[in-house]
Amino acid sequence: MEVPIYIYIALVAGIVSILAAIYFRSLVMKADPGNERMVEVSGYIDSGARTFIKVQYKVLGIFVVVLAIALMFLPSPLENNERLFVFLNWEQSLVYVIGAIASMWAGYLGMQVGVKANTRSAQACTIGTKEGFNVAFLGGCVMGLAVVGVALIGVSLVYMIFLSPLVVLGFSFGASSVALFMKCGGGIYTKTADVGADLVGKAEYNLPEDDPRNPATIADNVGDNVGDIAGMGSDLFDSYVASIVATMILATSLVVGSALGLFIILPIIFCSVGLFASLIGIFIIKWFGSDEPGKALNSGTYLATVLFAGLGFIIIWIITLSYPNSAVRLWRVYLATVIGLLSGIVIGFTSDYYTREDKKPTRSIAESAEEGHAVVILSGFSYGLLSVGPPAIGIIVAMAIAYILDGVFGVGMAAVGMLAVVGTIVANDAYGPIVDNARGIAEQGELGDDVISTADRLDMAGNTAKAITKGFAIGAANLTVLALMFSFAEEAGIEIIDLLSVRVLIGAFIGVVAPAIFSALLVMSVQRNAGKMVREIRRQFEENPKILTGEEAADFNKCIEIATRGALRELIFPSIISIIIPLAVGAIFGVAALGAFLAGAILSGFVFAIFMSNSGGSWDNAKKYIEDGNLGGKGTETHKASITGDTVGDPFKDTAGPSINTLLVVMSLTASIFMGFLLAFNQGAGLISVFL
Amino acid sequence: MEVPIYIYIALVAGIVSILAAIYFRSLVMKADPGNERMVEVSGYIDSGARTFIKVQYKVLGIFVVVLAIALMFLPSPLENNERLFVFLNWEQSLVYVIGAIASMWAGYLGMQVGVKANTRSAQACTIGTKEGFNVAFLGGCVMGLAVVGVALIGVSLVYMIFLSPLVVLGFSFGASSVALFMKCGGGIYTKTADVGADLVGKAEYNLPEDDPRNPATIADNVGDNVGDIAGMGSDLFDSYVASIVATMILATSLVVGSALGLFIILPIIFCSVGLFASLIGIFIIKWFGSDEPGKALNSGTYLATVLFAGLGFIIIWIITLSYPNSAVRLWRVYLATVIGLLSGIVIGFTSDYYTREDKKPTRSIAESAEEGHAVVILSGFSYGLLSVGPPAIGIIVAMAIAYILDGVFGVGMAAVGMLAVVGTIVANDAYGPIVDNARGIAEQGELGDDVISTADRLDMAGNTAKAITKGFAIGAANLTVLALMFSFAEEAGIEIIDLLSVRVLIGAFIGVVAPAIFSALLVMSVQRNAGKMVREIRRQFEENPKILTGEEAADFNKCIEIATRGALRELIFPSIISIIIPLAVGAIFGVAALGAFLAGAILSGFVFAIFMSNSGGSWDNAKKYIEDGNLGGKGTETHKASITGDTVGDPFKDTAGPSINTLLVVMSLTASIFMGFLLAFNQGAGLISVFL
Repeated sequence: MEVPIYIYIALVAGIVSILAAIYFRSLVMKADPGNERMVEVSGYIDSGARTFIKVQYKVLGIFVVVLAIALMFLPSPLENNERLFVFLNWEQSLVYVIGAIASMWAGYLGMQVGVKANTRSAQACTIGTKEGFNVAFLGGCVMGLAVVGVALIGVSLVYMIFLSPLVVLGFSFGASSVALFMKCGGGIYTKTADVGADLVGKAEYNLPEDDPRNPATIADNVGDNVGDIAGMGSDLFDSYVASIVATMILATSLVVGSALGLFIILPIIFCSVGLFASLIGIFIIKWFGSDEPGKALNSGTYLATVLFAGLGFIIIWIITLSYPNSAVRLWRVYLATVIGLLSGIVIGFTSDYYTREDKKPTRSIAESAEEGHAVVILSGFSYGLLSVGPPAIGIIVAMAIAYILDGVFGVGMAAVGMLAVVGTIVANDAYGPIVDNARGIAEQGELGDDVISTADRLDMAGNTAKAITKGFAIGAANLTVLALMFSFAEEAGIEIIDLLSVRVLIGAFIGVVAPAIFSALLVMSVQRNAGKMVREIRRQFEENPKILTGEEAADFNKCIEIATRGALRELIFPSIISIIIPLAVGAIFGVAALGAFLAGAILSGFVFAIFMSNSGGSWDNAKKYIEDGNLGGKGTETHKASITGDTVGDPFKDTAGPSINTLLVVMSLTASIFMGFLLAFNQGAGLISVFL
Repeated sequence: MEVPIYIYIALVAGIVSILAAIYFRSLVMKADPGNERMVEVSGYIDSGARTFIKVQYKVLGIFVVVLAIALMFLPSPLENNERLFVFLNWEQSLVYVIGAIASMWAGYLGMQVGVKANTRSAQACTIGTKEGFNVAFLGGCVMGLAVVGVALIGVSLVYMIFLSPLVVLGFSFGASSVALFMKCGGGIYTKTADVGADLVGKAEYNLPEDDPRNPATIADNVGDNVGDIAGMGSDLFDSYVASIVATMILATSLVVGSALGLFIILPIIFCSVGLFASLIGIFIIKWFGSDEPGKALNSGTYLATVLFAGLGFIIIWIITLSYPNSAVRLWRVYLATVIGLLSGIVIGFTSDYYTREDKKPTRSIAESAEEGHAVVILSGFSYGLLSVGPPAIGIIVAMAIAYILDGVFGVGMAAVGMLAVVGTIVANDAYGPIVDNARGIAEQGELGDDVISTADRLDMAGNTAKAITKGFAIGAANLTVLALMFSFAEEAGIEIIDLLSVRVLIGAFIGVVAPAIFSALLVMSVQRNAGKMVREIRRQFEENPKILTGEEAADFNKCIEIATRGALRELIFPSIISIIIPLAVGAIFGVAALGAFLAGAILSGFVFAIFMSNSGGSWDNAKKYIEDGNLGGKGTETHKASITGDTVGDPFKDTAGPSINTLLVVMSLTASIFMGFLLAFNQGAGLISVFL
């Protein structure tokens, strides 16, 4: 089967994107990094982040090598139809390693610019909001464009070489392994530092946020970078590639005659369109600049959406000229992608509603803080659960319409559409930690109140953007894993997954329980690790009273070490179970039960992810609302209660909630990749088929 | 089809059970009710409970009449096979009303004895632990035996008259409507009062527990009765009847030739066996008495289990004499019931592990209180989620073995087995609030420290028993609703529920989300209503300072009124959605999607029910552990943090968590009962079948 020439669009898009990233990087680096103290602080953050990445990548390296070897002994996807054990399946293995390296590189690149952009954005704030915003925004764009560029080039090259979407699965699995490590590890790291810094520094010693005397301050800033830039970046890299690959696999069974080759690469084509849309949007925003950072970020998202719809229309029109027989179907697919993207936007904005401090939910949570710690928790808990409703409706509607338009392939294309403008989404997201750090650096560099308040404005816009992109990421991952489930069934030759079969029901049962256990493990990890951090900070203050007076510097490195080691140790168990559980379910109860397991995990994971992200976001903003002087303001009992809410919400929204996405993708890919292994158990009927 | 003579066992068992209940009631009434003050307090509780029941039953009456009329216009289940609309389906309607009345009567009877037993148990504590225990235990048994007796007589009579398990569904639905009202209403009531009393009385004014100056004290005691006795009783009545009816329907399609009539009534036979087992167990415990209340309650459960296995063996052996051809199958079914019961016990005891103050989870939660409010919440939250694992494994293993033994009928019989000794379970459960009240009355009646500490011992045993029965109730309800799902599919003629069909997946999605939203609504209800209670208590203290000095009595009735009205108002919305959502899913997406909806709701409901019950129980006991003088004891910051945990846990464990059971049963029965209505939409394919 020939690969249509349109695939070169992807290569062009990818290369342009990487060139743009390099260009933006140079713009960021050219900016003034500020005074000595700022450069010093930024340097600490930079080296802390490098330490984490180094340790993390070392272990990740071992993990990847072990899995690569395991993959070699799996049946080759190239001969999948014959379902034979073919030893030394080097393609899968190689592509897997490449996927992992690509994801690591993209994450590293983005983060590395992030830690340069923070101090430069702080310095630019001395000139004005527009200037400060521009530096941070470009820094975020480097990450966004790097992620998308690398992913797109990687996927298209692998497909052009091996001509099998099943081999591309390996690339996706590589990206996922990295994402799981980065997301869980980064999430544990960032909250270990944050909770530790808050519990001792802020609560016990009344130090302000980002105070240099607090030994965990640098670790906290590092956490923002490794959790929110590198972690989020690899998470979206992961979903992005997975949505492409799942939809490519779904395309292989379409009945479209000679247009098959085209339909298989449609996901790649649409992603290229999305990338151009993101790029143009970014250039327009950069060109016009803005004094209102929040508006600018949102305009970027809207612009990219409109441009995607417009450019997609043009490209599909061009394609129909060479494939007139498939014209109707192509238009239907086009609509599915647009529906997907629109529903992503809607989901993002409903998350925003539930977490914004000027809307009813967060207002009510803040008010309930007046009745004490317990009531603020109950209130955030219930609003968090309620907030699952609207995005669930969004996904359901998108899925239904996409399915009506073009069956399960339509559902996959909706996921692709949702992720098409991921460049913009990652850019907006990475902007957040850059300005968060910039604010801290401005404080430590003593740039004065005016500059700090400018940096504050940038930071607030970052928080809003983050709420939206988080909702978006969960929605997109959800549609993607649904598409992966369908592609898994396709690949395994499963025609039905019948819930009335007890073994299938058991699979679904385990699936529904899994995200709950996974969330619990991650929250416990943070709690355990934060406990160590708390003891270390207390020890430093007690052993050296000169730290508190500012005469001697606190030992940042010790805190960074605790966060780094802890994150690494704690992520191992959840990571391994996310691979072992699907394999166990498949081997024991069979592949149909594994399909149900995936469905159960996807649906319950969605509930937990949205609930945890939104309740956490809402508690955070309720606290900020009170700190802004409302309901009595700082220092009151109401404020203390709101801090309890925020602290509970921290591991919810930044560790467990967003890690669930990655968990789901890894589990779904594991099921697909290890298909050959699973089919070895009574032809996929599972060990239990002796009885059931 | 003839009904085998064995059904008369059920009538005998039911009558014996009611006679025993009447006898125990007379024993309780004969006991000394104590001094004047005790009688007075008990009288207040009694009248408060009556007020609630009166108001509740009035609205419930209207609800039942409306539904009864609606049911009249549904196709008659007697002509189900032809699927015709037969107007004036009086059988279903009549039986529905009878089911509702039976459940109301059983709940009322049990609660009415409970409010008499409390003061008598307190007085008996002046003689000794054994005596105090005996009165409370017999009081609980009245409830347990009334529930089982009425249910068994009701089900068998309805079946003997109409000879159709589908008509028995109406009886079950009647019981469920009542249970939903009692469980949600009772749960909201009890926590409104409890949280209100704690937040103002204990926290703001430092009044001790059960202090008569606290205007919400009586409402709090009333709450124990309406929530834990009447609510729990109607909940288990509901599951009990539902498990019988679901399994009877599953039996109708068995290929067992002339033994069909026997297999249809097997659930009734096994429940009768279980009732005899419970009765003998109760008499043995009563006969020997015990100084160790905790041990005595558990021995009752073990005894009933062993007796059930023994008596079941004998009765099945007798039956095989007249049905030699079905002997093997009968023995397999027998084993399924025993497996069900055993797994129920195991599930109960794992809940116990996660909530006992001498085990690791609760210990860790208590210790985490040392790190503040937020950490105690995080810790309880994660242990609560982790605790879902073991009972899930219990259910899965029971389901798998039961299925291997006799297909979905075996699964139904496992549910029947699990609920067979429900008499003992309800008795143990109702014992809890009786001794809880007894402790309060002993305090208010000034019976002295020795008596109070005796009452305390009884109370502690009650708490442990409650943890076990709660886990048991959730497990049993879970297997029951799974059986109901299968019987629903059976009845609708659905052969497969294919998760790869998008409409089915949408159904499952809505199902998984539903319990989350339902829990959120109930928690919010408690929070809203408790807010009103808080304001009322504060108002009373502020307007009349003589209440605090004890010179004038607080206005109990005002608090009772707030709790009553609030509970009623707040339960309406959740109750209605639990009927409307399944109907909407079925009408729009079709009956197969509705089946998936049920499956999704059952699995996710299980997660939420176990999580909320166990985390709540654990926080409660962590607080008690600290109040016992550990980790610094009362009044410390650690203690305060543990109170936050307990307050958050209150609506989790006593309102939302246990209501989910009833929700699931109601939703499942709604699907079955309104089958005719749903089949009217494109022959059950749903409105969407035009597109999907």
